[in-house]
Amino acid sequence: MQVIDTEWSKIEQEVAKEAFDRAYKREIKSLMALVQEKAGAIAQLDDMWSLHDFLSAKRHDIDGKYDYRYSFLIFVFARLVKEEWLDINELQGLTKEKLAKILALSRM
Amino acid sequence: MQVIDTEWSKIEQEVAKEAFDRAYKREIKSLMALVQEKAGAIAQLDDMWSLHDFLSAKRHDIDGKYDYRYSFLIFVFARLVKEEWLDINELQGLTKEKLAKILALSRM
Repeated sequence: MQVIDTEWSKIEQEVAKEAFDRAYKREIKSLMALVQEKAGAIAQLDDMWSLHDFLSAKRHDIDGKYDYRYSFLIFVFARLVKEEWLDINELQGLTKEKLAKILALSRM
Repeated sequence: MQVIDTEWSKIEQEVAKEAFDRAYKREIKSLMALVQEKAGAIAQLDDMWSLHDFLSAKRHDIDGKYDYRYSFLIFVFARLVKEEWLDINELQGLTKEKLAKILALSRM
């Protein structure tokens, strides 16, 4: 499959790593704030188990999402752009072809 | 097994229900406070997953612990006394035999 075989130059690797880390930090920071907000609003047992369910889902989600293998990066970035953890402009430095693929996938 | 066959009079049932509910409310209240404290102290991702692990364990623990079947109540109360969610004096009204069993089991 073409996307999986895409090669990454040294400069692209740097751009990718920085964008990846930035998105990750953003999402984690936002998630921690949300968890603290939910915890602060716990008034009954169901709220606590609901926080537990939320954490279970997010943990699974984050563990799967941030996969820094080059063969997956196009898809990873498309998802991060779609979910607004990353702006497409933060990926400037990648080839036009990669940017177009990321943008197209992010709109699916 | 003798303990399992123990019968509960109407008065004993009332004492048991009240003590059971009281211990449950105490433990849940304490747990909610602890979860809020842990959430408030989240500074990095590991703290959040550690809170998730804690909630997983507690949910499993609480689901299993509060079993209001009369055939299990002696064991349930023994555990609650052992864990200090209940004082043996709050079970006054049960037969001396039951109290002695609960106390003995709570010290194991």
